Amino acid sequence: MKILLIGGSGNIGRAIAAELDGRHEIIAAGRQHGDVRVDIEDEASIIAMYQRLPELDAVAVATGGRNGHLAPVAEMSAARYRVGLESKLLGQVNVVLHGLNHVRDGGSFTLVGGVSDAQSIAPQFSNVYMANAALDAFVTAAAVELPRGLRINLVAPQLLDESVEAYGAWFRGMPTTPAASVARAYSLSIEGMQNGQVYRLGR
Amino acid sequence: MKILLIGGSGNIGRAIAAELDGRHEIIAAGRQHGDVRVDIEDEASIIAMYQRLPELDAVAVATGGRNGHLAPVAEMSAARYRVGLESKLLGQVNVVLHGLNHVRDGGSFTLVGGVSDAQSIAPQFSNVYMANAALDAFVTAAAVELPRGLRINLVAPQLLDESVEAYGAWFRGMPTTPAASVARAYSLSIEGMQNGQVYRLGR
Repeated sequence: MKILLIGGSGNIGRAIAAELDGRHEIIAAGRQHGDVRVDIEDEASIIAMYQRLPELDAVAVATGGRNGHLAPVAEMSAARYRVGLESKLLGQVNVVLHGLNHVRDGGSFTLVGGVSDAQSIAPQFSNVYMANAALDAFVTAAAVELPRGLRINLVAPQLLDESVEAYGAWFRGMPTTPAASVARAYSLSIEGMQNGQVYRLGR
Repeated sequence: MKILLIGGSGNIGRAIAAELDGRHEIIAAGRQHGDVRVDIEDEASIIAMYQRLPELDAVAVATGGRNGHLAPVAEMSAARYRVGLESKLLGQVNVVLHGLNHVRDGGSFTLVGGVSDAQSIAPQFSNVYMANAALDAFVTAAAVELPRGLRINLVAPQLLDESVEAYGAWFRGMPTTPAASVARAYSLSIEGMQNGQVYRLGR
């Protein structure tokens, strides 16, 4: 398969490449690294990326861009909520919408979400949770409406083992999961037949 | 209690007024009806509304504005998804954020969401589901972060009995619920002590 991997340089992206490379041709895309440049927050850059690529079998997104604005709810604003909505949510939505005509029949999109449930709430992350939950709903709805047997799934990890050192202080007590397990969920989505699934990891 | 009811002229709004009137003072706000005018998609109009009101005990929102753009996923775009994000989601978020200093200690916000789960998916509604799911996450996160004992809950109805004639053809086979039951969920939120709850009705 020809697999476009957007955001290949982070912990999840590198684990996906390690899982799939060898079996498949990986085309890496990123803001600063990769075979092609793309900024998922810039719709024109997504359109330009697809125009330079051959027909694909799968698109995997491993980055949510800026993800969201971190602040207590009482210090948030509509403008601050738009950070996560425009990057993690609509950035990935645009990767799907503009990619529909560049993926072969039966091909797949795999997006990256995260937690949003009450047991996973940590202070200051309401913007990220909002984007994560909206991605759940988008994938659930898109799965029953996409044409030509195209499939779409969401990988929703909690805190990565690899991120505990950098971010663990924000999430004391939260379950963690290795990036390699997250990458296997991408494999399940891309190399399997599932559609409309949200793979929740680290619970 | 002094209760601000935004969107009092629709099926849900009228049922809320019927449930709470007599026991409480209802201040009705709406785009075209009510004691004060407000358009929840216009942040300045929300700010201006609160400046004209006395201190409140509760804020109840019964309208999602334009709710969302209805179209198959393959015909959607980021611009079309912004309809629901800016109206149903950020419109209600702004009602909360700008209302924080206008509601007394322990007072409540009650917002209107809806369905977003796989068993409730109907074609063309992905924008509405996205906004609904994002509202779930916002309320869940805000409930643990709001200051001064302020509470927040979400009422998430499926199709109303009263809407079957107008919208039933979009939702064949879906469970329905009377607006009076939806209004009782607002009562539970406003007159009770609960916080961070999503009241799912009609399942």
